[in-house]
Order: sequence, then C-alpha cells, then structure tokens
Amino acid sequence: MRIGLLTGGGDCPGLNAAIRAVVKRGTSELGCSIVGFNNGWQGVIDGDAKPLTRDDVSGILIHGGTMLGTARCHPHKVEGGMEAVKDTFEHEKLDGFICIGGDGTLKAAGKVSKALGVPVIGIPKTIDNDVVGTDNAIGFDTAVTVATEAVDRLHSTAESHNRVMVVELMGRHSGWIAVTAGIAGGADIILAPEEPFDIDQIAKRIKHRHRYKNFSIVAVAEGAIPAEGTTWEGNPTIDAKGNPIAGSIGHEVTKAIEARTGFPTRLTVLGYVQRGGVPTAADRLLGTRMGIAAIDGIVAGESHKFTAQQGDHIVLEPFETMMGKTKWVPADLLKAANGL
Amino acid sequence: MRIGLLTGGGDCPGLNAAIRAVVKRGTSELGCSIVGFNNGWQGVIDGDAKPLTRDDVSGILIHGGTMLGTARCHPHKVEGGMEAVKDTFEHEKLDGFICIGGDGTLKAAGKVSKALGVPVIGIPKTIDNDVVGTDNAIGFDTAVTVATEAVDRLHSTAESHNRVMVVELMGRHSGWIAVTAGIAGGADIILAPEEPFDIDQIAKRIKHRHRYKNFSIVAVAEGAIPAEGTTWEGNPTIDAKGNPIAGSIGHEVTKAIEARTGFPTRLTVLGYVQRGGVPTAADRLLGTRMGIAAIDGIVAGESHKFTAQQGDHIVLEPFETMMGKTKWVPADLLKAANGL
Amino acid sequence: MRIGLLTGGGDCPGLNAAIRAVVKRGTSELGCSIVGFNNGWQGVIDGDAKPLTRDDVSGILIHGGTMLGTARCHPHKVEGGMEAVKDTFEHEKLDGFICIGGDGTLKAAGKVSKALGVPVIGIPKTIDNDVVGTDNAIGFDTAVTVATEAVDRLHSTAESHNRVMVVELMGRHSGWIAVTAGIAGGADIILAPEEPFDIDQIAKRIKHRHRYKNFSIVAVAEGAIPAEGTTWEGNPTIDAKGNPIAGSIGHEVTKAIEARTGFPTRLTVLGYVQRGGVPTAADRLLGTRMGIAAIDGIVAGESHKFTAQQGDHIVLEPFETMMGKTKWVPADLLKAANGL
Amino acid sequence: MRIGLLTGGGDCPGLNAAIRAVVKRGTSELGCSIVGFNNGWQGVIDGDAKPLTRDDVSGILIHGGTMLGTARCHPHKVEGGMEAVKDTFEHEKLDGFICIGGDGTLKAAGKVSKALGVPVIGIPKTIDNDVVGTDNAIGFDTAVTVATEAVDRLHSTAESHNRVMVVELMGRHSGWIAVTAGIAGGADIILAPEEPFDIDQIAKRIKHRHRYKNFSIVAVAEGAIPAEGTTWEGNPTIDAKGNPIAGSIGHEVTKAIEARTGFPTRLTVLGYVQRGGVPTAADRLLGTRMGIAAIDGIVAGESHKFTAQQGDHIVLEPFETMMGKTKWVPADLLKAANGL
Repeated sequence: MRIGLLTGGGDCPGLNAAIRAVVKRGTSELGCSIVGFNNGWQGVIDGDAKPLTRDDVSGILIHGGTMLGTARCHPHKVEGGMEAVKDTFEHEKLDGFICIGGDGTLKAAGKVSKALGVPVIGIPKTIDNDVVGTDNAIGFDTAVTVATEAVDRLHSTAESHNRVMVVELMGRHSGWIAVTAGIAGGADIILAPEEPFDIDQIAKRIKHRHRYKNFSIVAVAEGAIPAEGTTWEGNPTIDAKGNPIAGSIGHEVTKAIEARTGFPTRLTVLGYVQRGGVPTAADRLLGTRMGIAAIDGIVAGESHKFTAQQGDHIVLEPFETMMGKTKWVPADLLKAANGL
Repeated sequence: MRIGLLTGGGDCPGLNAAIRAVVKRGTSELGCSIVGFNNGWQGVIDGDAKPLTRDDVSGILIHGGTMLGTARCHPHKVEGGMEAVKDTFEHEKLDGFICIGGDGTLKAAGKVSKALGVPVIGIPKTIDNDVVGTDNAIGFDTAVTVATEAVDRLHSTAESHNRVMVVELMGRHSGWIAVTAGIAGGADIILAPEEPFDIDQIAKRIKHRHRYKNFSIVAVAEGAIPAEGTTWEGNPTIDAKGNPIAGSIGHEVTKAIEARTGFPTRLTVLGYVQRGGVPTAADRLLGTRMGIAAIDGIVAGESHKFTAQQGDHIVLEPFETMMGKTKWVPADLLKAANGL
Repeated sequence: MRIGLLTGGGDCPGLNAAIRAVVKRGTSELGCSIVGFNNGWQGVIDGDAKPLTRDDVSGILIHGGTMLGTARCHPHKVEGGMEAVKDTFEHEKLDGFICIGGDGTLKAAGKVSKALGVPVIGIPKTIDNDVVGTDNAIGFDTAVTVATEAVDRLHSTAESHNRVMVVELMGRHSGWIAVTAGIAGGADIILAPEEPFDIDQIAKRIKHRHRYKNFSIVAVAEGAIPAEGTTWEGNPTIDAKGNPIAGSIGHEVTKAIEARTGFPTRLTVLGYVQRGGVPTAADRLLGTRMGIAAIDGIVAGESHKFTAQQGDHIVLEPFETMMGKTKWVPADLLKAANGL
Repeated sequence: MRIGLLTGGGDCPGLNAAIRAVVKRGTSELGCSIVGFNNGWQGVIDGDAKPLTRDDVSGILIHGGTMLGTARCHPHKVEGGMEAVKDTFEHEKLDGFICIGGDGTLKAAGKVSKALGVPVIGIPKTIDNDVVGTDNAIGFDTAVTVATEAVDRLHSTAESHNRVMVVELMGRHSGWIAVTAGIAGGADIILAPEEPFDIDQIAKRIKHRHRYKNFSIVAVAEGAIPAEGTTWEGNPTIDAKGNPIAGSIGHEVTKAIEARTGFPTRLTVLGYVQRGGVPTAADRLLGTRMGIAAIDGIVAGESHKFTAQQGDHIVLEPFETMMGKTKWVPADLLKAANGL
C-alpha cells in the first residue's frame, strides 16, 4: 500500500515521533510505501510530495517541530481544493492518508474522507488538549512541562521581592495548560476560559493571602475573560474574529491587580517556547504509539477515524467523536485549581 | 473529622504533592484535622504522629521523596501490629486513614480497613506503574522522564564510538519503565519481564543492525529474564527470594552481547536517580488530584477504596481491583518496543 | 566574630548557595556568629536582623531567590542612612558585613566601608555579568542556561512554519545574556547594546538567509538600540531615566523585520524566568566558593574588597576595581555572535 | 587554505559546536576548505577524509558526541603512523590540522606538529577538566551538570529512607567532577584522587552526622583511593595498568561504609550518561569560541598551540603548557568539598 502522510495546523513537540513511527512500521513491518507531503493539506493540493524512508526519519524522535513542515490549510475551504486532493491521491497512486493535526486539520481530514471516499486516519495533536475522545493529544505534555518550569522559576523571584507574578500561558479556547501547569507549579490564582473571572474577587483573594504570605503567582490562559456583570476597566482582549490577542489578557490582568492591591505586579508572556523543543518522554511515547496505531489501522482497512488514547490503550475513534466539539477542563480539575 | 495520613513503601517523586493536597484541602476547605504519621505503617504502630498544617506543607510541591518518611512495614505481618494500629486510631481519635503507597502498602491498607472496620482510602504510587485499575500511579512519569534522558545521553556517545550501550532500568516484576523509556528514547532492543528474551536472537538483531548503523542501545528492565530453553551462560540474576538482583541482569546481558557480537559493549545501571528529585508536572498534577480525591472521598464516607486515574477523571476503585494483581505492559506497547 | 550578612538588588539563582556557605563555614569552622538582615541595606537601616544557624540554611542550596529577601536600597542615598547603618553595626556588636549584590549594592558596600571604617566584603551577583574584575557573577550562568533553552525551543517552531522568531532577553546596559545565549542557541542575528544595529542591514541579512533557509532566530538584549543615522521608524524603547522599557525593543524590532522582509515574525519576551528557579551547578559552585572566600577573608582581616573568580581561583579584589565601571562583552564574543 | 579537522579520544558534549564553528567561520568568513577526518588520527592515517560544508554542520550545535566519530589512536605509537599522517597531509594538499581532543590526542598533535613541521592547532576537550593552561575544557560543564542533577535526585530518596547514598562519578586521575558536582549537589562527603581517604574517618564523620540528620550523600571519583597506612579491607580498585576499574571504588566504599556505620548504604554508578547528550549552554559557547579561535589562529600562521580559556578571553597556548601535566583540583575547592 502507498500511504500519504502530512502534518497540519500549528506545530508542536512529538509530531516527528509520530512521523517516524508511521514510516518505520509502515516500511519495515507492513511493506508500505510512505509518501510525505510538505506543509499540510497545502502540499497535498500542490502535489508537493516526497517518499519517506527509514533513513529520512532516523534521529528525528527527539526533535520538536515537524520535518514535513505545516500550514493552516483546509481543502474544503480552498477553491478547487477537494478536486486537487483527489488528483494528487490518484496521481500518487495512494491508498490512503494519515493526517496529523489539530481540530481544524482533523475536521478537514473528515471532510476529505467523506467527500472523496478516501481512507483517512487522523492523529490528534494540540498543545491545547481540547480534542474530545482522547485522554491526551500530542504536544500537550511538553507544553505543560515547559509552562510548569516557568511557573517554578517565577516562584523564587516572587518570594524574594514581595511581588505578584502574572504568567500568561497558551490556551485560546480552553484552559488546559493554565490549569494543569498552574496546579503543578503551585500557582495561587488560575484563570481559564472555562470560568470567567471577577477581577475584584481575584484582587481580594490576593490581598487576603498577602496578610500571611509575601507573594502570589497568577496563571492566566490567553483566552481567559472577565465574567459578565463584573468590573472591568481593561481593554478588550479579543480581536474582531473573536480570537484572543496574545499578551493582551495578561497585560490587562497585571494592570488591574496592581491597581487594586498596590503590590508590584509583573507579567511574563511565555509564548512560543511552549510549543517548541525536545518533546517529553510522554509525548514521544504518545506520538510513537499513535503513529503505529494509525498505520496499522489504515492497513487493516480502517478509515474516517482518529487515534485516541483511552487509559492504557490506543484505539480508533470515528471523526464524529471530535468534530465540532471541544474538550473542556473537567470540574474536578477546576476545583483543584481554585481550592488549594 | 481527624484523618491520619501516611506514606509507605519505596519513596518516589510526587508523594509530597499528594500530602500537600490532602492537608491544604482537608484543613482549609473541609475543616478536617490531618495527623501525619512518620515512616508509614510503622509510625502508626508506634503512635509516631504529628499534626500537619498548611504551613507544614508550604513549598513541598516540587520536592521529591516524602516529608513523612517511609518504611516497608505491613501491620498484618507484625506481631501485634493490627492491635497497635487500632490503639493508635482510637488514641488519636481518628476518623480514617489516607494511605499513600505501592502494592504492599495498599494491600496492608485493605487489610486494616477490613479487619478493623476503619475507613481507609489509598493513593497508589509506584515508579513501576503496575497497579491495576488506574492509568497511572504517582512517580511513574518522573521515573520514565529520568530514564529517557539517560537513554538520550547514551545515544550520542554510542554513535561516536561504534558501541553497544546497555542501560539497566528499574522494574522488578513488570517492564513499564524499560518499555516506555526505551521507546521514548529510541532504544533498539528492549528487554522486559513480560517477554523473556533469547540472547542469541538479540545478538543476531544487533549484528544485523550494525551492517548499516554503527551503534545500538539496549534497555533492560532489572527483572528481565532469559526465556526457558534458550542459551544462557550467565549467572543467575535472581536472589533466593525470587527477586532480581540490582545490576545483575544488565551485567550479564552486557557480557553476553559483547561475546556474541564482538562489538564493545558498555553498561550503565541507572539506579536510584530514577526514584528521586523534582517530580514532573504530570506527577505533581496526579499527586494533587489524587490527594484531593482521597480527602473528599473519606469525608464523603467512602472507604476501602483507592484513587484511580481513568482517562480525564480521578475515581475511587475498591481495593479488590488491585490487590494481588499486577498491571502488565499491554501488547501494543510491547509491539512498539520491538517493531520499530 | 559577629558578621552581618545581606543580599541586595534584584534576586537571582545562586544567592542562597552563597548565604549557606557563609553560614556553614562561618559557624562550624570559624566560630563566627552570622546575623542575617532582611531586605538588603534596608534591613540594616531598620535593624531587621536574625541570627542564622546551620539549620536555617539546610536545603536552600538548590533554591532560587534569597532566603533573606532583597531590596534596592542604598544607605548613602537615604536621609540618615549611613548613621542608621552605623547604629545597627554597633547595636548588633558586629565585626563586619558580607554583602551579596550587584553593581549598586556593592557600590553602597564600598561607601559604607569607606565612610564608616567598617570591614565589608562584597560578593558579586548579577545575571547581566557586567561586574569588572571577576570572570563570572552569581546568577549569570543560570540566566544564560534558561535563555538558551528558550532559543532551542523556538528553533523547532520557526523551522516548521517558515518564520522569523524574535526573542527579547534581559540585559539593560550590556548584552552578555543575548550574546552568549544567542551563540549557544545558534541564533542567526544577535543584537546587543555594545553594537548599535542598523535595522535595514538586519532585514537584508535575513532576506539573504531565507534564500536557502526557511527560518531565522533573532536574539535581542532589552538594551539594544538602533545606531545613530540609521533608519528607525519605531517608538523610543527607553524611558525618561534612560533605562530600557521591558518588551519594547523586542516589539519594535519584530514589527520592523516583518515590515521589511514580509516574513511572519513573532516575538517572545522571556522576562523574569531568566532570574528565578533552581540554580545551575556552576552557579551553586560559584556561590559556595565566593561565600567561603568572603567569610575566610573577613575573618582574616580583609575589607573593602569583593570576591572575584579569576580562572580556577577565587580572589579578593578592591571595590575600586568594579565601582563605576561596566564589563562589556569582549570583541571576540561579538565576532562570534555575528560571524557564524 | 585547506585545513584538516579531527576529533580524538573519548567523545563528550560540545565537540560538534567546535566542529561547526571551524567549518562555518572557515568556509564563510575566511575562504578555507575544511576536510573532516573520521575517527580521529586513525582517519588521518587511513586517509579517511570528507569535505565539510556549512550544510553538513547545520543543526549539530545541540547534539552530543561528534559527527566525525572518534578513536583513541596516537600516530607516534603506531608503526608507520607518522609517515601515513605526512602522506595524507600531502595527498589532501592540507595547510594544517585542527585537532580536538584530550590529553592523549593533543600530545599526539604536538608530536605531529614537531616531527612533521606541520601547522597544528589543538582544542582541548575532556570531561575530566585536567588540561593545564585553560580554565575549562569542552565537555566538563555538561558532565558536572548531569552529575549534579543525579546528586540532587539522590538527596530526596536518601532523606525519605534514612540512608547513605554513594554515587561514583567519572574522574580517573583527578577529581574535578566529583568535587564540583559534589559541592554543587551538597554532598556530605567527597572523595577525590587528590586527597587519599581514610575510610575509618569517613565512617566516623557519617556516624556523627546521623546524630542530627538521617541521611548522607557520598560522591566518589572513580580514581579515589584509600590513603596509605589506613585500614582498607576492600579489593583493589585499580587494574594492572594502574587505571581505575569503573564501579569498583564505589562498590568497595559502599560496603565499607555500611559495615562500619550499620546504616543502609546504596550505590549508584552514573557512568556514560556523564559524557553524552545535549551540551550545556556553557559547553556550546566554549566549543564555538574555541573553534573560531582555532581557525582564526591557523589562518593567521599560528601552530603548535592549543586554544585556552583564560578569564573572559580565548587565547592560544603552546602545547608545552599542557603536555605531560595534569591540572589538579585546587586547594580552595578541596577545602570547600570538605569544610561545609
């Protein structure tokens, strides 16, 4: 069999582990040819393909990013996109696609598989961890690890100077990174989109805390928002399309806390370091297992499904399980974020 | 309510996160008093108790080990042990125990709860990850992370010198660390107790590999054993009680590979560094969530159960789920360990 | 002898190592009493003192920040400050001060020792590494390590997306962190205060590079400035007092590069994570050695000097060596920053 | 100019940084051709050469080991070795060699340069840091960092179990790693070849310490030896050639401490992980600076010298400075190792 392989959406650590697993298992154990497409669905549309061998993927396990490059391109939203995908599929004599990506890329994968009747298996990756149906997506563990290390580092400088340290972490729609890294790093206040905040209450909690402690750490997801009906003199933190503006909510929360508490308050916007670099052991393992499950699945005749970690196992779930949905941070985690 | 808290068995990173969560949530949110016992069940038998406050657990989140100390003591195996536990329970006016430990400690917890009719909630920790009923136990992620970093480091020196590098990792009965760190670190050969090995086959695979690559990495669980009926001139690697001798299998495998392949073969026994130090974000999060679930559970009247991670949730499972059982490395992981 | 100990200026990793060394060596080997002052010279002025014992400093070696707290206070700039220092010196029956700090704190230490005739030994710390007379100051190695890890992480996401990644690093007056972390992380362009830049030349170099590479990393010290006479449409990046505004130059450089090259250009402002957290082995070693040299020196009758690393040795240098001076990044390092 | 480049002796992190710097600066700035030899002087003898371009060294900065491979081969000790080096030099039309290596390799480099009248510049690397004339050699900082992390991890498990933890670190002739990582990691006892130990005294110190602390960490260099005239029932730890046997002294010290103190005593032999993996920022910087200095030097007509870090500068020192000598751990460091 000849299988097309691509990575779409934002990059993150662990993608290369999945690519490597698909290629190694596909070529050595299953007798497949693996055709890599550059820059996600754009490369499929353009027919920008190259064969991938064991040698090509040697040594990439520990590298962040993706050796195939990536782009935010959805064939069904591009004029003539679906036809171009079909053309490439036929021209390359493919038997299926394995498509590694986030929300948007997997949705596009579902549409390709449906509309063209082409076998497609997806592998979920997103540092935001908001894919329904899988315990974890590739990249999340590394992002949380990097974010937690940053929170750890901020602790000591906060303690030495009697300060409030605000750190803005990634998470536009859900607050997985802020909540988990906040808990793991011992943040005192954690703001996530799942629970709009009342800045007056936040300031009150900080003032109360500073009666017996001389510092506070505040972890803010970039998609955190003030609750309706609460005081908010800050600027909007959301752009015209409804997406959070990076750095914006962190900046406004910092100003608002300093104004209300009088404590020196400093901001760190962690940014892109959360989505780059050497993947954690957990992300390499997850990428490898999902890569194997994907190639095994497509060779076994599966289609229109994505690999999902469920407890100790990797299973295949129908795309419908995740399409158009968001996995929110569950209640017990939000409780842990607020109740310690 | 007054709740006794103890840690038993071998220590590992993440225990303090669980202790901290029990104390903070118990004292601040639930109005409990938490009584810490030193050195596991031994401390309960001896009545070696101290009250634990928020201040006592401040700052311990990032520390490995356990602030309560630990010991391998099982009250039901000690003359008069159960009675002593009962006495302490009454003397300290306790309403229940939260007991953080591995296989042996939780089994003892089950017996205490059964025999004395005392509420007990367990929290599973073990770097071996072999507790049935939970996706993960506290300490496993850190151990795998440390082991993977070691495998990463061995890679470069192997490549530069045309060598076989053998690394013995912890795992006396099951091979979770060797298998997952081996996969994550890109080890070429992985030996786990779940699949007894044929040293001749191993040597053959290494010789084959060295036709096109000039190094190999072999990850060996300390409980790995040669398959019956295969050649094995090495010494026994198991002591009189049937337990693996640390360093032993690594040493024998190293000698056997060098003898059969002629390639310079070097051994690293990673040892105790796998069970110490700063816990990973994942272990701190797991410890915190399990600590909260345990104190919430016991206050809600639960007993004879242990906290278990199942997908995105922490639930309570009856002790019977895990007692006397071992969670083996599943087939798809063993396949990944051998098939890349 | 009774020795007063304080930490002043911004905190950084390694201060606690120095405190621990002064206390352990002073109390156990030299028979001294060590009196710690909270919050730098402010604590001396206020007489905010506490005795420090071996137990007080146990376990602090790996902690960032300073257990004594810190403040930016210079007795000679405070009304009645010098008299208050003298009063405290006499009231506490001190025989000298050991003072750990940066440029400002050590300058103040020099003035105290001169004006009051009081024995003072300084220990230089600054993540900026700009103290003349010593190879390294405490905190610099950790800051460079953290910054380099960030540059490493940015590399992979830059490569995957065909991007320019700009990272603003600390360094208001000299560019030590940006230059060394930039070289260590393989940054393509490095902007330091020592060499004012021409943004048109920078853009030209990036465009040239992108003919054969699809990404660039730009490391910018927060005190980097455009060269006089070169194009610069950006906002001022310096406040009324002549100090760089954090985040400002990074923001302007990012905009200017994107405008000139057309390549998507993203900014990360690393901020306070550079000055917090677990110190590197090198900083713990340096702190320990300087702490020992300081207490040994003051007991031996030395004064008006600071500890300095010179090659393999720690020596004592007169305050005059460093007062009013700045150690600039040397020419060969700037060449390395630009010539690879 | 055509310059031959090789790496000899044991590999370590930072070699690739030096290779990359030589190639990038040599080819892009200085118009040189760089010819890489595989496997050290062996490759020169065999004429095993390949041209090195910018592309060849792209991305290797963060990789441990050496892309050129390495071997322990000294031309002056090989029959016809010097003639073969001369032949290769002429056949490849070289103008000089840059040779990255430790004690043995640089000594060989000196002999080549002397005997053949060929320009040679050396770059010192050794995790043992025992090269006279330079503050640091490539690889040392990474080894100390890895060793310190291990000591950190051992701390927590020692504290939890009331144990003595012994860790054997590399260092056959001098104790740089054990002393510096021991101090940085807060080890309680440090044994280095520079100061032969009295095991009875060691045991006494540990027993004294355990009156008020419940654990001890002992860092042992693999070349540590008992002092003459002191009790020592252990096996010899040195082989027939006078070299330390890896793991041996650690094993004997562990047994001896347990026998004398009665405290459970556990051994970790850290081994090859100390010389592999991602180099620290400091080692990448040192490798880069030395690579630049070497190629700049040879192009400027220098020969028979090695690059040396002296304070903030990289200079060229005659081979005689280091040949046949060993840089021992200085007295103030040994004092710090014993006096806290």
